[in-house]
Amino acid sequence: MLNYRKGLDEMPSYDGVERDYRIKVNANECTMNLPPLVEERVIYGLYFVGLNRYPNEEYYSLVEQIARNFSVKPEQILIGGGSSEIIEKVFHTFGGDGNKVVYPVPSFSMYKIYAKAADSQAVPFALDKNFDIDVDKFIATVKSENANLAVICNPNNPTGNALTVDDVEKIAKSIDCAFLLDEAYVEFYGHSAFKLVAKYPNLIVARTFSKAYGLAGARVGYSIANAEVTKMIGKTFMPYHMNKLSLVTADIVYQMRDEFLPRIQMTIAERKRMAERLKKIPALEVFTSHTNFILIRHEKAEALKNYLESIDIGIRYFSPSAQELKNCLRISIGTREENDEVFKAISDWLTTH
Amino acid sequence: MLNYRKGLDEMPSYDGVERDYRIKVNANECTMNLPPLVEERVIYGLYFVGLNRYPNEEYYSLVEQIARNFSVKPEQILIGGGSSEIIEKVFHTFGGDGNKVVYPVPSFSMYKIYAKAADSQAVPFALDKNFDIDVDKFIATVKSENANLAVICNPNNPTGNALTVDDVEKIAKSIDCAFLLDEAYVEFYGHSAFKLVAKYPNLIVARTFSKAYGLAGARVGYSIANAEVTKMIGKTFMPYHMNKLSLVTADIVYQMRDEFLPRIQMTIAERKRMAERLKKIPALEVFTSHTNFILIRHEKAEALKNYLESIDIGIRYFSPSAQELKNCLRISIGTREENDEVFKAISDWLTTH
Repeated sequence: MLNYRKGLDEMPSYDGVERDYRIKVNANECTMNLPPLVEERVIYGLYFVGLNRYPNEEYYSLVEQIARNFSVKPEQILIGGGSSEIIEKVFHTFGGDGNKVVYPVPSFSMYKIYAKAADSQAVPFALDKNFDIDVDKFIATVKSENANLAVICNPNNPTGNALTVDDVEKIAKSIDCAFLLDEAYVEFYGHSAFKLVAKYPNLIVARTFSKAYGLAGARVGYSIANAEVTKMIGKTFMPYHMNKLSLVTADIVYQMRDEFLPRIQMTIAERKRMAERLKKIPALEVFTSHTNFILIRHEKAEALKNYLESIDIGIRYFSPSAQELKNCLRISIGTREENDEVFKAISDWLTTH
Repeated sequence: MLNYRKGLDEMPSYDGVERDYRIKVNANECTMNLPPLVEERVIYGLYFVGLNRYPNEEYYSLVEQIARNFSVKPEQILIGGGSSEIIEKVFHTFGGDGNKVVYPVPSFSMYKIYAKAADSQAVPFALDKNFDIDVDKFIATVKSENANLAVICNPNNPTGNALTVDDVEKIAKSIDCAFLLDEAYVEFYGHSAFKLVAKYPNLIVARTFSKAYGLAGARVGYSIANAEVTKMIGKTFMPYHMNKLSLVTADIVYQMRDEFLPRIQMTIAERKRMAERLKKIPALEVFTSHTNFILIRHEKAEALKNYLESIDIGIRYFSPSAQELKNCLRISIGTREENDEVFKAISDWLTTH
C-alpha cells in the first residue's frame, strides 16, 4: 500500500556494529577521553549554552575559528555532523540522475552507501594488491567514466597508506569534475592538501574532529573548499542541522588543539612501535600506515578476531563480502598499555595456531 | 565546469533568520532555559559522556524510554536532529521521481523545501480564510492528486489552530498513502493522535524536544510509527547521525519531563491571557491558538514589527511572498513579564498609528 522511494529497500547498511570491549581498538577512535583541562573547559562552556534557543552564532564562531586557522574565508567552510555528513552532502551535491562517483576500494565502506543514497552510480576503483593507488590509472578512470565526483581518502582507511600532496595535486589538476579529499586521518600523517583549495576550485577537503581530536561522540566535521562550491554544498544542509552542544564542544577543543599534539605524537610513535613488533611475526603481513591504526593480514584472521573478542579485545574484522580485504584485520592504536596487551594477545595466539 | 545536482541551484532557502533580541518571541522557542534541577542533572550527565567513542547505547536508551512512555515497541521509534530531520527523512522516504506531497498552506514553511530536497512534487493545499482545514477537501485532494505523502501540522504553525483527533483519524482512515502528522506543538494542545499509529500503518507522528521541552539548541526529535515503516525511514538515516551530547541531554530531560509540566501550563495560561487582551484591541485580528504562540493580523503589520524590533523585541513577520499570511505577525508566548511588555508595546504603538 505504501509506496517507498525507488531503490530504498535495497539500500545497503553500514557493516560496522558497535559493542563495548575492555580494550576497544575497532573503530579508530581515540582510546582516551578529552585531556582533563579541555574536558573541564568544555563542561564549563556547556553550562552557559542556552539550549532553549535555536543554534545561531555557535555555528559561525566555529566556522570563523577554522577559517582563521587555515587562512581561508569563512565562506569556504561548512560544518557537518562528522565528516560523514560532509561527505554525504558532497555526494548529494554532485549526485542524482545516475551521475557517476569514482572512489577507491578498499576504502571507507560508506562511500558505496553515500553514492546510493545520492541516487548516483558507484564506480569502485580497485587499489593494487599492496593497496596502493595507481594515480594515472585513477585519473584515466575518472575521465573515461565521465565521472561527476572523484573521491580519495588520504591517508586511506582501512589500509593506512597515503598519497603525497604532489600526487593529490596531480589528480586535482588532471580531472575536471568535483574532487573530494577525505582527510579524516591526516593529523597522523602530517601532510594535508588543504592549500590546494586556493588553486583548484574542484577540490573539497573534508576533515573531522572524530579521530585526532577525540570527538567521535560529538559528530563534528568540516569542509574547506572554494566559496562558490561551498555555497552549493551548503544548500543541501537543512537549517539548524548542527546542535549547540557539539558546536560549543568543538569550538573549545579547537581553541585548545595544542593540548592534543602530545597524544597525536604518542599515537604516531606507538603506531611505529606496534608495526615494528608485528612485522617480526613472520606469519603476519603488516601494511604501512600513516594513520591511527594498522592493517594486518593473516590466513586465520577470523579465528584470531574471535579469540581477541573472547578476551574482550575488539578489533575490526571485515565482512567476508569485502573480498579485497580477505583475512585482514584493522587494529586502532591505543595507549601504550593497551597496545602491549593487544600485541601480546596476538603474539601468544599465533604461536599456538 | 562543475556539474551540480539537477535543480540544486533553485533550491529555496528557509526564510527564518536568527538574531538576538532583548525579548525574543519570534521562533516559538521556550523563553526560559532548562529548569535548574534539570540543568544540573544534564551537566552532571554530560560530564560522564565518553566523547571519544562513537554514539552507541545512548541512542537506544532514549528510544527505549520513549517507547515505554507511549507503550509502543522500540522498533517503532526513530530519533532525529529535531523533528526537522525526522520530517526531512520522511519526505525522502516517500519522495523521489516527482512523487507528490500534499501539505497545508500556510503551515511550516519548510515543507516546501523538504519536498524539493526529496525530488518530490509539492502540492500545497490552501487552508480557508480562517486558516481552518476542510478535512473532506483535503482527503479528496490527496486522492485526486494520487499523492504519495500527506502532511498535517497539528496544531498548525504558524496559525495555531488544531484538528480534533477524530478528524486526524478520518484522514488516516480515508487515504492510502503515507500520512505524516507533525505534532511539534502538541504538548500545548493536549490531544495527541499517537495512539492511532496502532490502527493505521500509514500514520507517522513526528514530535520534538525543541518546544515544550526547551531543547531547540540540542536538536532532538522523534517519530512514532508502524515498525515496518519505521525500518524503511530508518534506512535514510546515516550511521551515527545523532551525537551523544544531545542524546544524553534529551534522555535526562525526558526522565524529568514532569518538571516541565508547570511551564507548559503557564504557557497555556499566558496564551489565553494574551489572546484575551489582544482581542480587546479592535484593529487586531487574533487567531485562536492551541500552541505556544499567537497569530495576529493588522494592516500595518510590517510597521508594527519594525517598531517592536526598534525596541529590541523580536516577533515573527512573514515574507511578503507568503501572500496567505499577508499582514500577519506571530508572537511566541514568553514569561508573564515578557508577555506584558510585548502587549504594552503593541497596544501603545497601535493607539498612535
